Amino acid sequence: MSKTYKVAVVGATGVVGREMMNVLEERTFPVSELVPLASPRTAGEKITFQDKEYTVGVACAEAFEGVDIALFSAGGSASLELAPLAAEKGAVVIDNSSAWRMDPEVPLVVPEVNPEAVAGYKQKGIIANPNCSTIQMVVALKPLHDLGGLKRVIVSTYQAVSGSGKAAMDELSTQVSQLFNGLETEPSVYPHTIAFNCLPHIDVFKDDGYTKEEHKMIFETRKIMDLPDLGVCPTCVRVPVFNGHAESITAEFEKNISVDDARKALREGRGLFVQDEPENNLYPTQLEISGSDATCVGRLREDPSAPNSLAFWCVADNLRKGAATNAVQVAEILIENHLGK
Amino acid sequence: MSKTYKVAVVGATGVVGREMMNVLEERTFPVSELVPLASPRTAGEKITFQDKEYTVGVACAEAFEGVDIALFSAGGSASLELAPLAAEKGAVVIDNSSAWRMDPEVPLVVPEVNPEAVAGYKQKGIIANPNCSTIQMVVALKPLHDLGGLKRVIVSTYQAVSGSGKAAMDELSTQVSQLFNGLETEPSVYPHTIAFNCLPHIDVFKDDGYTKEEHKMIFETRKIMDLPDLGVCPTCVRVPVFNGHAESITAEFEKNISVDDARKALREGRGLFVQDEPENNLYPTQLEISGSDATCVGRLREDPSAPNSLAFWCVADNLRKGAATNAVQVAEILIENHLGK
Repeated sequence: MSKTYKVAVVGATGVVGREMMNVLEERTFPVSELVPLASPRTAGEKITFQDKEYTVGVACAEAFEGVDIALFSAGGSASLELAPLAAEKGAVVIDNSSAWRMDPEVPLVVPEVNPEAVAGYKQKGIIANPNCSTIQMVVALKPLHDLGGLKRVIVSTYQAVSGSGKAAMDELSTQVSQLFNGLETEPSVYPHTIAFNCLPHIDVFKDDGYTKEEHKMIFETRKIMDLPDLGVCPTCVRVPVFNGHAESITAEFEKNISVDDARKALREGRGLFVQDEPENNLYPTQLEISGSDATCVGRLREDPSAPNSLAFWCVADNLRKGAATNAVQVAEILIENHLGK
Repeated sequence: MSKTYKVAVVGATGVVGREMMNVLEERTFPVSELVPLASPRTAGEKITFQDKEYTVGVACAEAFEGVDIALFSAGGSASLELAPLAAEKGAVVIDNSSAWRMDPEVPLVVPEVNPEAVAGYKQKGIIANPNCSTIQMVVALKPLHDLGGLKRVIVSTYQAVSGSGKAAMDELSTQVSQLFNGLETEPSVYPHTIAFNCLPHIDVFKDDGYTKEEHKMIFETRKIMDLPDLGVCPTCVRVPVFNGHAESITAEFEKNISVDDARKALREGRGLFVQDEPENNLYPTQLEISGSDATCVGRLREDPSAPNSLAFWCVADNLRKGAATNAVQVAEILIENHLGK
């Protein structure tokens, strides 16, 4: 019998935590025992995994006893505190928060782009899962970079509210009903009404006028693609969509890449699905790709405003490829190439 | 008593036509007689203007008898057919469709940018009102261009459904209700569901992979700003917002412009309102600016990915500044500098 693993999911009652368990199940990850954990506030809830009922436990050092792999999605401060404790107990942490991503001793991994970086888990026992908008962008940029050498990226995002968790999804529903009934909306998760509105504001603002989400797209992209000087100009925008992030990307390269060559490279690229038939009104949309694991690309065309530049539209499920699926793929590399040996 | 004018509104039953009459009223445009016109399908409807009830007439050559100014917003084919007939009868046509915009004998005017072009109405008796997304972009770019010389623009839009007319606004409402009630949506105005979804597709696709809306942003911007070689890379996206267009703009200049100088120029720029206090979560949003005539700018910052490049967020009411208000402003220049003389 092949090896099986004791897997903890920290943040098991949140939208990403639940999706992590779905993905573990769907991909028949060899789980010997599941340890669903959460904060004291939501611990005690029942969840079902592989037809077995589990009670969500409280995330604390003792809970990681004997755990091989701990998937974290419980926010930055929980990760900062608990990831080192889990690692100390011998678990390899795959952390979905932003807490460890820029730590030079923590690999930041997108399996389609830098799977070899997983080996770096030995330094701290922690692997970081990148930001959702960054993951789908680097999956799409990777085969193009291999062809032409990426120089600069300008990206504007169309990000779903599921990225802010269940409370934000409820807020969008509630506000839609309020507006339809002529009532005042009461923004709570977001500083302004998100129903029938777009907010150019994701995560907190930094001194340079960019948001932390935009910084993630700059610095995480550089780290994952190993391009420390890459120019990235991001604008991150929350849109009234429940799930799925879309991105309008303009990318400049060292060398010219024809649209045909780019399309071929994207078609053959790992984790990518090209849906690009303008003549049939076909391009990926958030509603249609929600639930899928692929990074979907369409609207590929030459950018007439600069040499060696391409524009395209990139859509992925932020809870799956942008979070849960990517983390489980990293865990798969870990058991295939490292823990299993 | 100062001069008054007989003003026809063609497309008087549509969303832009109605807004044109609102704006004429609000700005106390000197209307001696209103001639509301529409296709035979909607003619006969009653409308109220300056407390007087009018019956919408059928748009045909005879209807323009004695008309001084005809504001058209009835679609391209109506404009192609009727604008020359109205001009022949002596009316000056201000046309909101795309039919005449690129005609070298027809001026394409945004009063904040190229008011002097209005004089060109004498050639064909027609002045074209630009595309909604183009208008707000050039209003914002103009003072920056005056400072540093515009070289290249990359723009991704977040466009409201009101730009497609009343049927599209109804489609968004209906689909939201359908999805909330677990029903299938039936896209009709758009090829895919627009509720809780973003569609990178506005107007028809052209052979180069760009849409006609994107072509408008390229070619109209060049004509209005008199920059025939300007590089523009647009991605036009329909978002589930009822009214108001937003744009994420990255603009490269010949010379460096500091963020402070850019902000000052935008603050002093015509038709602009700067709302840019990230520290207080303040930036313009579509819901909040809807109903206003200003082009609102926020999120102004340096683009770290290229020299002499700035990024910002630009929002305007597409029915007002993007259509009706711009047309009435053009009519004001016309009576001030030309017809009144």
